[in-house]
Amino acid sequence: MTVLILTCAEDVTADMVVLALHDLGVPVVRLDPADLPGRISLSAEYVQGDFHGHLSTGDRVVSMNGLRSIWVRRPGQPAAHATQQSAWLTAESAQALYGTLYSTGTRWMNHPVAAEQARRKPWQLHVAHHSGFAVPPTLITTFPRIARDFAARHRDLVVKSISGAHPGDPPMALPTTRVEPDADFAQVTAGPTLLQQRVPKRADIRLTCVGDELFAARKLSDDKEVDGRFTDDGALWAPAGIPARIAQAVRAYMSLTQLAYGAFDFAEDRDGTWWFLECNQSGQFGFIELETGQPLAENVAAWLAGRPAPR
Amino acid sequence: MTVLILTCAEDVTADMVVLALHDLGVPVVRLDPADLPGRISLSAEYVQGDFHGHLSTGDRVVSMNGLRSIWVRRPGQPAAHATQQSAWLTAESAQALYGTLYSTGTRWMNHPVAAEQARRKPWQLHVAHHSGFAVPPTLITTFPRIARDFAARHRDLVVKSISGAHPGDPPMALPTTRVEPDADFAQVTAGPTLLQQRVPKRADIRLTCVGDELFAARKLSDDKEVDGRFTDDGALWAPAGIPARIAQAVRAYMSLTQLAYGAFDFAEDRDGTWWFLECNQSGQFGFIELETGQPLAENVAAWLAGRPAPR
Repeated sequence: MTVLILTCAEDVTADMVVLALHDLGVPVVRLDPADLPGRISLSAEYVQGDFHGHLSTGDRVVSMNGLRSIWVRRPGQPAAHATQQSAWLTAESAQALYGTLYSTGTRWMNHPVAAEQARRKPWQLHVAHHSGFAVPPTLITTFPRIARDFAARHRDLVVKSISGAHPGDPPMALPTTRVEPDADFAQVTAGPTLLQQRVPKRADIRLTCVGDELFAARKLSDDKEVDGRFTDDGALWAPAGIPARIAQAVRAYMSLTQLAYGAFDFAEDRDGTWWFLECNQSGQFGFIELETGQPLAENVAAWLAGRPAPR
Repeated sequence: MTVLILTCAEDVTADMVVLALHDLGVPVVRLDPADLPGRISLSAEYVQGDFHGHLSTGDRVVSMNGLRSIWVRRPGQPAAHATQQSAWLTAESAQALYGTLYSTGTRWMNHPVAAEQARRKPWQLHVAHHSGFAVPPTLITTFPRIARDFAARHRDLVVKSISGAHPGDPPMALPTTRVEPDADFAQVTAGPTLLQQRVPKRADIRLTCVGDELFAARKLSDDKEVDGRFTDDGALWAPAGIPARIAQAVRAYMSLTQLAYGAFDFAEDRDGTWWFLECNQSGQFGFIELETGQPLAENVAAWLAGRPAPR
């Protein structure tokens, strides 16, 4: 039984997992949906209640009926490499590929339907509350008056993107930014704006959840720094223990969102409380593995292979 | 408690349901997401586990906490009417609107996550099989050899769009077309192609499912006609009885897909068997109501209002 990986050609994180799967002796097929049609061929038959499908790329053929699991890493847009590109061909190819793969009943990391819902940041805050995390007071608004009132109540604020990366090629990550004390918020009428009470932090926490396995890493932080992704002060990620309450909340969150993989970001305040900032269902883990030595790729591979976690 | 309807300005089907809701004395707010930001303002606060949101348009304000239900009819793309349009503003506005509405825990017809999955046609075939419908043998392929083999086995075929309407403004519906006996299928390498055994039919069936209520309509069909949407032979839709086996399969399908509304298309063959063709989770019902007199708008309104079905 084969593991199917959907990702683009240049993806070193996928390379790490492919190596780990080779070590486990598990067959892998790696495809970029951008190559359908073209380098990838697809066929699926629905006859009298039976479903038979297969995918092929070059000399490799994989039966959709014999899939062990599917890992959706960084797939390209279907038909993006086609000779005659069109929105129509992309729609048809996406339907053909994902519609047939949905019919397989295999295990997904993560199922695209769960992933799409889990990307909605405001819903993340809601699920985080229900899972038992501490969540900084947050406002999403187009009303200047309400923004001013929120600023008066919560004083020290940051503003951040609601949708994540700025669309573009390549997409651009937008830093979370501290709001100046004299901001007047008149501009929020131009687009919904997410304001959040700033957490005075002593460390950033990245918690990676792979199936049932949790790995936390801590990086000490200068409290002046707002978004650790955009500063390089020489601090390194180091493995961190996970409070029982946090582990419980992570499991509740994964269950409510039906995700198999999630990368959680927390801000640790001076009292040691971990404040939920976000959960990225496709968050990178290579840089954490590199600095902490935590066996993340190996755990992803074990989950995909359906083997016990290796640690 | 208010019903929220997300749809574009020109939507006579929505007009019918709004009237029916007025008759029930239920407050309604109707919004087009294209008007956010601009004519629509939005605010939502997540503080200490509580969620408080509201939407306003002109002089109307609706609390997200007091929503009776949400009907996703034909919503425009968020920010499509904004003064300064951009992919970025659309992404931020979509996140703000749908992400906060997902946090309400209200009833949806249909929830966008369920709708997105239910639009995948190959997955529809899979679910239809599992629900107990008769489904014509179907192939989706980029392999000419497999297409030829399927044609040899099933002889009389139609070819249809996998993704539905051709993208464009306005989108263009593509007719299902009979495959000529001498077709050579070499072109299927250019894009995944859906081939289906043609059902020799005596009638088209449209079954509309609104919550727990089922309404079927039959239109007699000349067997030469392949796609009833594109011919006008004067035949009218008339109410039809629903076989018990079909009613059971519809309920199974709605449960597996988590839809509250679905418009099923069947081909009725000479033996009276209803062959599943597709289920459109946002299918029109105005033309059926007009010709059959079935109270579809009234039933949609009752479902949205949380009242017993009126028939």
